[in-house]
Amino acid sequence: MAEQVDPRPLTTVLDGRWGELRRRLRERMTSSKLADSYDLDREAHRALVSEQLRELVDAGHPKLGFDRAYGGEGDTGGSVVSFEMLGYGDLSLMVKAGVQWGLFGGAVQLLGTERHHERYLRDIISLELPGCFAMTEAGHGSDVQHLRTTATYTDGSFVVNTPDDAARKDYIGNAARDGRLAVVFAQLIVGDRQYGVHAFMVPIRDSAGRPMPGVRIEDCGPKAGLNGVDNGRLWFSGVRVPREALLNRYGDVTEDGTYTSPIESDGRRFFTMLGALVRGRVSVAGGAGSATQRALTIAVRRAEVRRQFQRPGDGAEVVLLDYLAHQRKLLPALATSYALHFAQEELVAMLHEVQSGPEPDERAQRVLESRAAGIKAVATWHATATVQTAREACGGAGYLAENLLPGLKADTDVFTTFEGDNTVLLQLVAKGLLTDYRDNFADLSPLATARLVAEQLMGAVLERLPARKLVSPALHDRAWHTDLFEDREQHILAGLARRLRAAASSDNDPFEVFNDAQDHVLLAGRAHIDRLVLDAFVAAIDTCADAPAKALLTRVCDLYVLSTIEADRAWFLEHGRLTPQLAKKVVAEVNALCKELRPHARTLVDAFAIPEQYLATQLG
Amino acid sequence: MAEQVDPRPLTTVLDGRWGELRRRLRERMTSSKLADSYDLDREAHRALVSEQLRELVDAGHPKLGFDRAYGGEGDTGGSVVSFEMLGYGDLSLMVKAGVQWGLFGGAVQLLGTERHHERYLRDIISLELPGCFAMTEAGHGSDVQHLRTTATYTDGSFVVNTPDDAARKDYIGNAARDGRLAVVFAQLIVGDRQYGVHAFMVPIRDSAGRPMPGVRIEDCGPKAGLNGVDNGRLWFSGVRVPREALLNRYGDVTEDGTYTSPIESDGRRFFTMLGALVRGRVSVAGGAGSATQRALTIAVRRAEVRRQFQRPGDGAEVVLLDYLAHQRKLLPALATSYALHFAQEELVAMLHEVQSGPEPDERAQRVLESRAAGIKAVATWHATATVQTAREACGGAGYLAENLLPGLKADTDVFTTFEGDNTVLLQLVAKGLLTDYRDNFADLSPLATARLVAEQLMGAVLERLPARKLVSPALHDRAWHTDLFEDREQHILAGLARRLRAAASSDNDPFEVFNDAQDHVLLAGRAHIDRLVLDAFVAAIDTCADAPAKALLTRVCDLYVLSTIEADRAWFLEHGRLTPQLAKKVVAEVNALCKELRPHARTLVDAFAIPEQYLATQLG
Repeated sequence: MAEQVDPRPLTTVLDGRWGELRRRLRERMTSSKLADSYDLDREAHRALVSEQLRELVDAGHPKLGFDRAYGGEGDTGGSVVSFEMLGYGDLSLMVKAGVQWGLFGGAVQLLGTERHHERYLRDIISLELPGCFAMTEAGHGSDVQHLRTTATYTDGSFVVNTPDDAARKDYIGNAARDGRLAVVFAQLIVGDRQYGVHAFMVPIRDSAGRPMPGVRIEDCGPKAGLNGVDNGRLWFSGVRVPREALLNRYGDVTEDGTYTSPIESDGRRFFTMLGALVRGRVSVAGGAGSATQRALTIAVRRAEVRRQFQRPGDGAEVVLLDYLAHQRKLLPALATSYALHFAQEELVAMLHEVQSGPEPDERAQRVLESRAAGIKAVATWHATATVQTAREACGGAGYLAENLLPGLKADTDVFTTFEGDNTVLLQLVAKGLLTDYRDNFADLSPLATARLVAEQLMGAVLERLPARKLVSPALHDRAWHTDLFEDREQHILAGLARRLRAAASSDNDPFEVFNDAQDHVLLAGRAHIDRLVLDAFVAAIDTCADAPAKALLTRVCDLYVLSTIEADRAWFLEHGRLTPQLAKKVVAEVNALCKELRPHARTLVDAFAIPEQYLATQLG
Repeated sequence: MAEQVDPRPLTTVLDGRWGELRRRLRERMTSSKLADSYDLDREAHRALVSEQLRELVDAGHPKLGFDRAYGGEGDTGGSVVSFEMLGYGDLSLMVKAGVQWGLFGGAVQLLGTERHHERYLRDIISLELPGCFAMTEAGHGSDVQHLRTTATYTDGSFVVNTPDDAARKDYIGNAARDGRLAVVFAQLIVGDRQYGVHAFMVPIRDSAGRPMPGVRIEDCGPKAGLNGVDNGRLWFSGVRVPREALLNRYGDVTEDGTYTSPIESDGRRFFTMLGALVRGRVSVAGGAGSATQRALTIAVRRAEVRRQFQRPGDGAEVVLLDYLAHQRKLLPALATSYALHFAQEELVAMLHEVQSGPEPDERAQRVLESRAAGIKAVATWHATATVQTAREACGGAGYLAENLLPGLKADTDVFTTFEGDNTVLLQLVAKGLLTDYRDNFADLSPLATARLVAEQLMGAVLERLPARKLVSPALHDRAWHTDLFEDREQHILAGLARRLRAAASSDNDPFEVFNDAQDHVLLAGRAHIDRLVLDAFVAAIDTCADAPAKALLTRVCDLYVLSTIEADRAWFLEHGRLTPQLAKKVVAEVNALCKELRPHARTLVDAFAIPEQYLATQLG
């Protein structure tokens, strides 16, 4: 490997397909006044973020994600990338933008039809109409299929009601201060029949900012972080909206009260609607990635200049990053950030393809949703762990707000549980694998679906399993890496299918059977995502045209692979995939790679090319 | 095990030796106005905490830790226990109290002599004299032996100077707002000889609160948490203090400028001074334990009432704690909190014995310091991980400040790096083990000491190693548990000694040799502490007089042991201590124990007996 590697070709690989856009946004951010704000009270922070949101409008930021017909640019992938770029700055601004244009605007675009687009999209893009995405209720966060706000068709219009306090809309961004209109998710009722959850355009404030009649609004108050976003609670009491307020792409009510939908099953229809909104999840994964890259950049810069304890002998003080323990804190995390970045790039491209076509292919949509769920979970857990580590790696200085890590920690903390709780998401991934992406819309009866597909699946998986052998590979052999990751994925899944089938064939309680295997289920999801992430890393290396950069990326990928194996080496040992000797060698090789990559740590974080104003701390 | 276990006998075991004091403090806290404050700006929070500090004075809180001769109660262990009890409340108050009476008052008491005690202690206890413990510098946090503030003896007094900006005192509690006097740690210089770091009483503010001449004070500004504590920076420029300002228990300067000390080596003297201040580290470990217990109590209460997703079949919604994944998040952490609580109790008792005697036995002091370092590291990392998990387990609701987890997260975050960075502390533990607690004061030459003692150590350790055998034990066999933990500890240590000796015998660079083994070093420290913690748990169970409570504690201990083995089962597999079959059984048994303990989760957190006002959230 070259002694010094130029970070620029690395940046080119990282920038990927939307590189041109990333470069443009990077320049714009650098020349903008946008910066972190770590010592504002809540009201001032909210006001600042609202102001910055207008700057984004002026810069044309929100156009990317919307149709050209309404002044947009029709670049779905680009809209996620621009969200990711906001992830380098104040995450309150990123989330507020995500609420307005991603969630609120996205719902109108993807669940509404032309009449809604015509009426609302231009004002949403221009921020004339600030709005909310009112799905979550206090009583139903993960299980949104069963939320309990109602919209009852009566006399040609819908009446929206909050039946009790647990059905209040909660944690709704833009609700406490700025939102004028909310996309409200409610059980649609016509006559005595309920058709499942649909979305309605419901005004919540008048032009003077006062709550509309029948709407009660409460501020969620201070949060751990993201205090520049005005989260609030909403209650509805007999709020009447016209029939056209229903976002009717997937279901409609005629004037005479007849319900119509292209999708017959209520459950399937709702999950199709949710699936259309997958961009939010993809965006959060990307934003988490950017914040993690920033934390690592700050911590690596610190570790390159901070010295502590004298070297025995010459009395010179040792630079922190020269300590193996410090390398082990930061470098495997850095390698994983590279890996996840490339997986995110692939995910964004997949989203772009699926949503740019006229009607998404059902199977492609299913794969996209599974991948978005899994990568969101893995990327946000990685963010939580890595920002924590970066803070600790900077000691007391890392605890001061002016050094930005406290804000990063507090702001990213909710990523693991919003836009889908990670545990629920990883379980979704595994269920999808179990059902081979079929019957994914069934009403949460994993056992029944497992029973259905286990036989086919078992055949397919067992065939692909290599003989249980103890190889003695070169630890940097990429083919060995990919074989090992694939084999683990398939073996865990096959074991799970076998286990569920065995239990299901008896008279056991279906919930208990599935629940007893929940750790196995989550492991199956995780192993699947690990394999996808590795594949993405390998593919990205192939795109690198610069030899020294490519050599460096190759080593970073080795560290990603071997530190992942190291973390789960108990599994490999238990299943005869590693001998004890080989497992110890993996640990030693992670140390060796840390040492080898240590001189390139600064290059690797510089390659993220984060605008300098977001790295302005007292630490570097 | 009984269907329902009474939490009270559990509380009795947890309350332990200082049970009477704990009960008294619990009552006092319950009847006080002390409560959390999660929505105050920094100035208001600081003012409130200062006020609450006075309430503590009125209640006699600070007396415990001071000599009877000055109005104290001379109960060292009790003073730590009372600090731990403050850990159930606003941690800013706990830390502010710790700064005033533990660090500042403790330094005067333990490093000063009668003239200082007479002059200062009563005013310190009564808060007439608010003060600081000014050790850490911007440039030297962990390596305080090499801090660079100077105190030069000139014309019968000391002149204190900050030679450059990196030598400013930093993160000093009580400095930004309230402190009048600081115990300043500085290199003592007499003539052209430097005698190492000593402590000096330096006034920093006059009675009107203005900085003293030559003293510059700056506010550290907002922090991630603990914003009720006024951390600040101090610079000294030619600040003259009388000769008597030197806290002269371990070293003094006569009027004619002759340096005297009962300890010849500068390094050894300084580490003896640091050793006297070990109570701070013990206290932080205890405070971290209390905060962790509170987070777990909040999360378990939430998990007992929160329902999400319908059960297949009957449509009833499932209580969160019925999910295996949720049990796995909370219950092993709860078992570890029990284990660490008992280890902390033993540590406090050890501190009490060592510091209550006239002159501490040197070996006992060494054992105490090692144990304090190790338990502080393990307990605070456990706190960071567990508070994080508790937040995530409460979803979006856990992100709201009113539900207290954000404050707990932010406040406890610094525990892993203050009062000794955890990585440095765990390394200290291992170095202590390597040198068999001898030569611990040598000037950081681990290799030399390793060389010295390796042979003796090797003999001793190898003898005690059991034959490398693959047993097929009952997984609940306590003798097997303790054997396994002891064997791991000894094997890791023996391997480390062997490795360092082999490397040291060649011409390798001593820093590189030790650094290449740093992960091994940290593992040795960790394995040692794990064994101590298990021993403490076993001993505590023996003190339980109530049969159902004892049976429950026994299962909790099983979960602690087996989840610890599970987390490190790769090591046991690699070293032939577990077969793959047995390792899988351990994982299955952790699941089984989660299921078995799940009905007792509420009992187990109720037994912490945390005053109800600190659990008042919207979550339960």
